[in-house]
Amino acid sequence: MSVLVVGSIALDSIKTATAARADLLGGSASYAAVSASYFGPVRLVGIVGSDFPAHHLDYFQSRGIDLAGLEIAEGKTFRWSGEYAQDMNSRETLSVDLNVFADYLPKLPTAYHDSRVVLLGNIAPELQHHVLDQAPRPDFVIADTMDLWIEIGRPKLVELLARIDCLILNDSEARRFTGESSLIKAAHAILAMGPRYVAIKKGEHGCIFFGPDEFFSVGAFPLAEVEDPTGAGDTFAGGVAGYLAHNLGRDGITPELLREALVHGSVMASFNVEAFGFERLLALQAAEIADRYAAFVKMSRFG
Amino acid sequence: MSVLVVGSIALDSIKTATAARADLLGGSASYAAVSASYFGPVRLVGIVGSDFPAHHLDYFQSRGIDLAGLEIAEGKTFRWSGEYAQDMNSRETLSVDLNVFADYLPKLPTAYHDSRVVLLGNIAPELQHHVLDQAPRPDFVIADTMDLWIEIGRPKLVELLARIDCLILNDSEARRFTGESSLIKAAHAILAMGPRYVAIKKGEHGCIFFGPDEFFSVGAFPLAEVEDPTGAGDTFAGGVAGYLAHNLGRDGITPELLREALVHGSVMASFNVEAFGFERLLALQAAEIADRYAAFVKMSRFG
Repeated sequence: MSVLVVGSIALDSIKTATAARADLLGGSASYAAVSASYFGPVRLVGIVGSDFPAHHLDYFQSRGIDLAGLEIAEGKTFRWSGEYAQDMNSRETLSVDLNVFADYLPKLPTAYHDSRVVLLGNIAPELQHHVLDQAPRPDFVIADTMDLWIEIGRPKLVELLARIDCLILNDSEARRFTGESSLIKAAHAILAMGPRYVAIKKGEHGCIFFGPDEFFSVGAFPLAEVEDPTGAGDTFAGGVAGYLAHNLGRDGITPELLREALVHGSVMASFNVEAFGFERLLALQAAEIADRYAAFVKMSRFG
Repeated sequence: MSVLVVGSIALDSIKTATAARADLLGGSASYAAVSASYFGPVRLVGIVGSDFPAHHLDYFQSRGIDLAGLEIAEGKTFRWSGEYAQDMNSRETLSVDLNVFADYLPKLPTAYHDSRVVLLGNIAPELQHHVLDQAPRPDFVIADTMDLWIEIGRPKLVELLARIDCLILNDSEARRFTGESSLIKAAHAILAMGPRYVAIKKGEHGCIFFGPDEFFSVGAFPLAEVEDPTGAGDTFAGGVAGYLAHNLGRDGITPELLREALVHGSVMASFNVEAFGFERLLALQAAEIADRYAAFVKMSRFG
């Protein structure tokens, strides 16, 4: 089953305490689509400028990503640059040039209307709404978000929650969004706004997941070094959505399947942060994913 | 199999953002011994003053705790008072009166020399050494510690690491002790100093555990409210040690048994923080422990 991924496609310039790299492939949809592609076919909806390097498009296609929903517009691709603090836990956005993304409205090809799993990657809530407006209700809609939309797009984000099945956000965003310092209370406050499930990412502390009669907690894969956290959240969300879409046929979306999907998302994110930009994903083999998933099972098992 | 618990026995005065209580039963050995007592017989080594309320001794005895190693000295019991910040994650010590604890040297009754599991509760590393000096090497020695000993007792603490099987400390202590911001690196640095295992407590984020070819990660039981965190670490350590001692006969100390023990420690700590001081433990029934352990298994299972 194909998964539909919408979000930004960007060229990123990234600084860490030890390195700096310019004009890397980036954007929420790029990371999410490539991550999802390890589990099955992906439909990508987004926009790039006429300056977007052809080899990135080749890369997407080599991963089995359908580009019928990708718009190539005259002008420059969305560019972002940022710098990470020494501990990699906080980052500062140095510049954002929306370019062709500025007036973008995502358009779904008719062939995409039957997508059963949709990942609304991290973009403005208005655009996330616009995607849902264009097609019949999918089986499962996941939305990712970030602090920016909690600050400046809150009303539309709250409206979106009534239209989705699962919100993904990180711990500081969950606290900011709800005003609750307890993540348990924050999760329940979010569920009260509409979605059936909420996944709260906690970086090195893993992930907690809430739903009706459902609480799941899983650690992060132990990494001594993080090279570049860019795209970790998108890779996580893409892995979750891709795994769900591929395995939906088993018994539909069950709590068990959701747990497996969340761990596969964590596995994908753990690879992504091991190198700059897409470097690690470019080299990633399916067997490595299976091995790391097995390690996750082993490190979490007791009783 | 009895577990030997050594540590402080105190009268605590505690302030939180919402409440204040004086002269409560406290101390690392008190919490650890009561917690361990839910799994089997406990031998308590410590000291109190002649002012120590008899009903606390009755409580210990009602829990099957052997008091042959408890010294009752003329004078006042060790007193501690502290105040928690709003978020319960940090606390300030308001006063410490060592009283009879000032010149205390733990003395092991001869009958305790065959203890197979020893918990060196959170006291000065010199006193932890002194306990190990008095008896043949037990099967498994766990030491708890805190930031104070990392600051002022570092050389003795480092020496202790070569004599124990497992060190328990929290995430900020592990970072301070090793100078590593990565907990993975911090854990490996600690293992290089001698102990076979290290357990790093992460509060609301659960616990990670390292050993030879062993990595275990488990979340914390989801609590929307924490009433009083005092004794959480001691209750955790006591639960671990008590569970190990009781189940040692199965196959010795295996990684599987250690994982079960760590989760039982987490279960005990999760109860303890639900009310002030010993209030929750005083009411705690064995069936509640079994239920919460089952909930832990359920919330952690996948794949």
